[in-house]
Amino acid sequence: MNDKRQLQEPLRVAVLGSGNGSNAQSIIDSIETGSLNAKITCVISDVENAYILERARKHGIHAEFISAAPFKTKLEGDAEKKYIALMQSFQTEVVVLAGFMRIVKTALLTAFPNRVLNIHPALLPAFPGMESWKQALDYGVKVAGCTVHIVDEGTDTGPILVQKSVPVLENDTPATLHTRIQAEEHKAYPEALTALASGRVRLEGRRAVIE
Amino acid sequence: MNDKRQLQEPLRVAVLGSGNGSNAQSIIDSIETGSLNAKITCVISDVENAYILERARKHGIHAEFISAAPFKTKLEGDAEKKYIALMQSFQTEVVVLAGFMRIVKTALLTAFPNRVLNIHPALLPAFPGMESWKQALDYGVKVAGCTVHIVDEGTDTGPILVQKSVPVLENDTPATLHTRIQAEEHKAYPEALTALASGRVRLEGRRAVIE
Repeated sequence: MNDKRQLQEPLRVAVLGSGNGSNAQSIIDSIETGSLNAKITCVISDVENAYILERARKHGIHAEFISAAPFKTKLEGDAEKKYIALMQSFQTEVVVLAGFMRIVKTALLTAFPNRVLNIHPALLPAFPGMESWKQALDYGVKVAGCTVHIVDEGTDTGPILVQKSVPVLENDTPATLHTRIQAEEHKAYPEALTALASGRVRLEGRRAVIE
Repeated sequence: MNDKRQLQEPLRVAVLGSGNGSNAQSIIDSIETGSLNAKITCVISDVENAYILERARKHGIHAEFISAAPFKTKLEGDAEKKYIALMQSFQTEVVVLAGFMRIVKTALLTAFPNRVLNIHPALLPAFPGMESWKQALDYGVKVAGCTVHIVDEGTDTGPILVQKSVPVLENDTPATLHTRIQAEEHKAYPEALTALASGRVRLEGRRAVIE
């Protein structure tokens, strides 16, 4: 997937988020400590007062609110065009969805082919969709986790880059399990980006092989 | 689930298998080393020359071939009655399916309510059905595993007692991944039986809580 990039150059990553931005923070931290050879080109939020924008600005990262209205649950139309244009203006290579509460559509996936990543708080293909930690608890699994995957046209179906597992404890509530999964998310995203930055990811069918 | 058993008494376990019996061996070993307070009442196979029968006899365990003909893929009818009668004659409390290549039906589940266990080589609910290690590899997951669950009327759907995860390595073949999963199966079944033997399992809806 990375054949054409200059591996000595930092991977140019844009981050889209709607909320607190704790996954964005884990990526920022990995860059600042030197473990991830990347640069965040911009952070864009569809929520004007989302804390993810403030986090970015604290680290000197370009951060913008871009309304995605009139749509409520997807990024499409003029808004989508604005998102793509801003990211392309910064020579973005990889788009990271970090708590971005909208479905992304074909135009974005076409602009960044196989380069839009999402993180999902379950060991996919188990428990796609909303509140997956609660789904896991209700089902009664003993192992839960998170998944970083390439976004495709489906919901939570694309090729998997990284998965991390956590135990489900007998006295877990949805909140305690979610917290344990989030701690692994903060390792999983930097790990997936490190693999992409170093050009070690190869797609074999739907299987992402990290060399 | 275990309120009525005398906890100082060994859990009385019957094992059904069609093949090599490596999971049966792990249970035998756990009993012989004293980590599992159980007694194998009998081992029954639907395959006359299955090695699981020889394993059992080597350890002085009652072992019988009982034909399940004329059915090819399920245990039903007269054969099912014979299996149940033999297990009940030995005051069996728990039925362990250990590579038993037949679908068990209502009569067996009714005779041993919530006490028929199966092991599945995947982190259910992901990858139910056959050759789940190959399904996992084809899907491209990075974490695989195994599941011990209570058998219900569905296929691989019952309440989960124990799950163990393993990493998927980038150069895995179906065979190497299956071997890694089987090593965890050999821990998972004794662990599930130990929980049952000590009366620590409680069902809350479909969630099995191990106290």
